[in-house]
Amino acid sequence: MKLSDILLAPQPRIETIGGDVLHAMKQGDVGYAGFGEAYFSLVSHGAVKAWKRHTRMTLNLVVPVGQVRFVFYIVDSVGVEKFRVEEIGQDCYARITVPPGIWFGFKGLSSPQSLVLNIASIPHDPNEVERLPVSNINYIWI
Amino acid sequence: MKLSDILLAPQPRIETIGGDVLHAMKQGDVGYAGFGEAYFSLVSHGAVKAWKRHTRMTLNLVVPVGQVRFVFYIVDSVGVEKFRVEEIGQDCYARITVPPGIWFGFKGLSSPQSLVLNIASIPHDPNEVERLPVSNINYIWI
Repeated sequence: MKLSDILLAPQPRIETIGGDVLHAMKQGDVGYAGFGEAYFSLVSHGAVKAWKRHTRMTLNLVVPVGQVRFVFYIVDSVGVEKFRVEEIGQDCYARITVPPGIWFGFKGLSSPQSLVLNIASIPHDPNEVERLPVSNINYIWI
Repeated sequence: MKLSDILLAPQPRIETIGGDVLHAMKQGDVGYAGFGEAYFSLVSHGAVKAWKRHTRMTLNLVVPVGQVRFVFYIVDSVGVEKFRVEEIGQDCYARITVPPGIWFGFKGLSSPQSLVLNIASIPHDPNEVERLPVSNINYIWI
């Protein structure tokens, strides 16, 4: 697993009378790995939700409201810790595809809350989620 | 097609430190008709987006931010016009499943905007969408 396996795909935002239309994901898009479940995570301004790693789920993440910093973490094959940071949201509208095997966390950058949609490739299964306390990975969430 | 074919399914909202988690749809849920595309519609306070009817798409609608009034309309087999109204949103969190063949429109009830997610059973296809101007169906959008 490499951090370059994480895909960032800008998504169309279509100006519409009464309120814009924002694409999220289409069957057959690059990064689409099947539909298991869709759920939202709200994240308050300054709050950090970290860390999680999935062993089977591919995540597809979009942020239609607010702005969110996602941090991805792996230890590579020679033991070197690597991080990748992506910020997406209403002003930088894109989808992030996260394959299994990558630690991730995120922080809300907008007041009062930001909204993350995850279109997950499999339904929630507690047996394929690993968790670590935020302090267990050496990233400074300024 | 009957208005009672529209399903309303309350969805879990899970209190979580840093921001709640809101379910939207799971593969195999009642109302799930396959994954074609997911997209958001923002709707400004007081704005009305109406009318549309799909000939093949099943819609699954959730409103994680704000509050939205959905109005559904059919002409039944003996020519009688029928309406059904449902309001969903962050304070009444539920999913509405709309089978093909039903006219629908919606109005934003929250300031500044509400957010609608549609998990559509097929990708967008302009050949299966019918549209009417808001004034062509006799509903008073107070």
